[in-house]
Amino acid sequence: MIYKSSLALLTDLYELTMAYGYWKLGIKDRLASFSLFFRRRPFKGNFAIAAGLETAIDFIENFRFEDSDLSYLSNLKGANGEPLFEEAFLKYLETFQLRCDLFAMPEGTIAFPYEPLLFVRGPILEAQILESSLLNIINFQTLIATKASRICAAAAGDEVIEFGLRRAQGIDGALSGTRASFVGGCHSTSNVMAGKYFGIPVKGTHAHSWIMAFDKEEEAFNAYADVMPNNCVYLVDTYNTIEGVKKAIAVAKTKKEKMLGVRLDSGDLAQLSIQIRKLLDEGGFPDAKIMASNELDEKIIRDLKTQGAKINLWGVGTNLITAKDQPALDGVYKLSAIQNEKGKWVNKLKISEQLVKTTNPGTLQVRRFYDQEGKAVCDMLYDFEKGATEECELIDPIDPTRRQWTEKGLASRDLLVPIFEKGKRVYSSPKLCDIRANTFKELETFCPSIRRFLHPHTYFTGLEKGVYDLKMKLIDGIKTKK
Amino acid sequence: MIYKSSLALLTDLYELTMAYGYWKLGIKDRLASFSLFFRRRPFKGNFAIAAGLETAIDFIENFRFEDSDLSYLSNLKGANGEPLFEEAFLKYLETFQLRCDLFAMPEGTIAFPYEPLLFVRGPILEAQILESSLLNIINFQTLIATKASRICAAAAGDEVIEFGLRRAQGIDGALSGTRASFVGGCHSTSNVMAGKYFGIPVKGTHAHSWIMAFDKEEEAFNAYADVMPNNCVYLVDTYNTIEGVKKAIAVAKTKKEKMLGVRLDSGDLAQLSIQIRKLLDEGGFPDAKIMASNELDEKIIRDLKTQGAKINLWGVGTNLITAKDQPALDGVYKLSAIQNEKGKWVNKLKISEQLVKTTNPGTLQVRRFYDQEGKAVCDMLYDFEKGATEECELIDPIDPTRRQWTEKGLASRDLLVPIFEKGKRVYSSPKLCDIRANTFKELETFCPSIRRFLHPHTYFTGLEKGVYDLKMKLIDGIKTKK
Repeated sequence: MIYKSSLALLTDLYELTMAYGYWKLGIKDRLASFSLFFRRRPFKGNFAIAAGLETAIDFIENFRFEDSDLSYLSNLKGANGEPLFEEAFLKYLETFQLRCDLFAMPEGTIAFPYEPLLFVRGPILEAQILESSLLNIINFQTLIATKASRICAAAAGDEVIEFGLRRAQGIDGALSGTRASFVGGCHSTSNVMAGKYFGIPVKGTHAHSWIMAFDKEEEAFNAYADVMPNNCVYLVDTYNTIEGVKKAIAVAKTKKEKMLGVRLDSGDLAQLSIQIRKLLDEGGFPDAKIMASNELDEKIIRDLKTQGAKINLWGVGTNLITAKDQPALDGVYKLSAIQNEKGKWVNKLKISEQLVKTTNPGTLQVRRFYDQEGKAVCDMLYDFEKGATEECELIDPIDPTRRQWTEKGLASRDLLVPIFEKGKRVYSSPKLCDIRANTFKELETFCPSIRRFLHPHTYFTGLEKGVYDLKMKLIDGIKTKK
Repeated sequence: MIYKSSLALLTDLYELTMAYGYWKLGIKDRLASFSLFFRRRPFKGNFAIAAGLETAIDFIENFRFEDSDLSYLSNLKGANGEPLFEEAFLKYLETFQLRCDLFAMPEGTIAFPYEPLLFVRGPILEAQILESSLLNIINFQTLIATKASRICAAAAGDEVIEFGLRRAQGIDGALSGTRASFVGGCHSTSNVMAGKYFGIPVKGTHAHSWIMAFDKEEEAFNAYADVMPNNCVYLVDTYNTIEGVKKAIAVAKTKKEKMLGVRLDSGDLAQLSIQIRKLLDEGGFPDAKIMASNELDEKIIRDLKTQGAKINLWGVGTNLITAKDQPALDGVYKLSAIQNEKGKWVNKLKISEQLVKTTNPGTLQVRRFYDQEGKAVCDMLYDFEKGATEECELIDPIDPTRRQWTEKGLASRDLLVPIFEKGKRVYSSPKLCDIRANTFKELETFCPSIRRFLHPHTYFTGLEKGVYDLKMKLIDGIKTKK
């Protein structure tokens, strides 16, 4: 936690007014189950990289209402000027403790639309109150990890440095965004605080202002090489890029320590990098890297590579850290089951005019099936309480004409693992570098056609037939009720 | 500060390697001046609403390197495995204190491209080291305040509630985003923590999950009205919107406390709101408000209003809090002047292949001129050190054929005011509600044609002729140097 205090109030007011309602009605301990999932495939690709779980765990472990929170809440007024919450409720919050179960996909897991990234099961008041903050944390980090993964795919093994701090959406937009970029595959960052807190390698040399602070460009290069001989990347585009490279080479030749590389931040990166590569090779610096930045994203990187750009390191800022072409994941957190007054579980769905927005009922687990080569073949959403048989019919939740059958003997794995049991943490998070390694391992289990970042082949995710039938029955019940 | 510790490490590594360089070369105290400005008009409108200054002040006042920061920095290694920073430098950082001057536009000020939102003048090491974090804070809050202002303009006086927490870019993306939304004109928020820290009014009632937790919709409405009689807004679209409204009316008729309104979150908002208004009026609730949300932005709100939508409260989430159509302001922080070794100020510019990306030299103040009706007529960028005469020729920085002259006797005002002098705060921030009021007052000083949010008339911002001539001279000097 980088925050002074609990983030319990980082929530929409309606979570608290509903909590108050459940408390007041005496039904706060009725068990309920909520699932967090997204509907739209991010960036028109196929999947998302689950991320943010560790931050969510941190949030939950520190969840409590502090005195200043309660004092703030006690001053909120309703329409008639009376306090919104009565004293006894605030008293209850004073010693409030979460006792929910939380199951979630480990970070770095590949997730498809409609698959729960997590579900929370517990007393309805407690499971509900987590909604806004879990969405905030998981939506954003999953979005950025996914974007990073696409950018790294385009860079095809080249080092990708996250450079977004100055254009990030706020302080934590930078900090947790950098973390998520690393989960998604970035190698390093310019953000020093992310280095400190998360152990992500940090990179950086100098800005145009360094060059401009000296009378001449070569003087600036020379000074930099002298003071920081073990970090020699020269920024060459302050005045004229090609002249800048020549000066960097001239300076580097006079130094004992080797030149690590040059960086360019403007101009035609394909053309310039080819010219620069030639100059560096001829100048005796075949190992010097060429680093480029300037409004990069996965499409531009791929295009530059297609044109033979000789770039080894990609600095990616704004388009990564804000996920510019789609700056929000549409994750939602929906009630899917609740105990009735007799203690019997009742599965629920939120209906909509469109099938795509109608939720799936019950607490759902995700099972991924693999072929003999270890490649993922399909995912099944099945009722966590009821389980599933080995041979199942699967039905696409938004296109019921698409169906598939699981075969006996297929290897499989359940994606959601226990994180908290009755409020007690039962999961020990991997190190961030292991999470990142896991992302790459997970990606390897999908065919290239599924991973393609434009017009990919649609991966099959289906509802186990029992869940599908229940869904249809519930829809019928609601649509014909009146 | 909601953070446990100083945010000094919330910076790009190159700020620290340059700091090290200036320290090592013994030129760390050479005075320099940096300006923060944006180039592209956000959202294709005309201007931005300056925001984030209070957060920046907070950041600066808490700026120090903590033991854990120094210990982290001491472990960073360069390419040869040697420490990146030598011990004596870290020792220097241990007692580091900022002694810069900072001038800035107060929050809520209308700012145009190329106008410094702030400038920092002080020892180069100190002025440089603030770059990344100032950009992070000011870029984001200015972006969101601007977006909020556009949305509020479209809502034309109706209440706008910021609803973005669950889709915001991280924790602070929500928190400081809510703050900026309020600066830009939003009336309230769902984000309770923003209410606590910033005193912004908070709003919220219940979610679809509340309705679904009961067997029947009317039961859910009834329960809510009973437990929270002074906050009665009914969410009516869980099953069927019009039927939901009828049930809400039936329930409200049995209650002593009045119904505040209904909320809808899906369907055709124009058509539904017209039908709902009729039902509410006929049902005896002419004062009940209709609140709508669902992927709203300024264009959709304006369109809905054009079609006669009877909506009184607008809940705006994702598109506001992420500024979806342009999720980053392109603000930069550029060196514009530096003392040479003899202590003489030398004005600097960063050249580019295009005039639009070439910076303006010197420490620039912005003077806004007003006509006799109090309407703003043009802005002048002039040298802060040299001042300006009453009658000046102004030249558009990116289209030198556009010129204008200031007249004698025009009322005017300098937009950048002192915030810190030699590290000491000299500015006392207005209350947030006064900042918000100021935004509206500022907007009033611009003609509607300037404020139009699509294809506005371009407002004239010009370089004072002396600054323009210097800029051209410096460009000539660089372009002909070799």
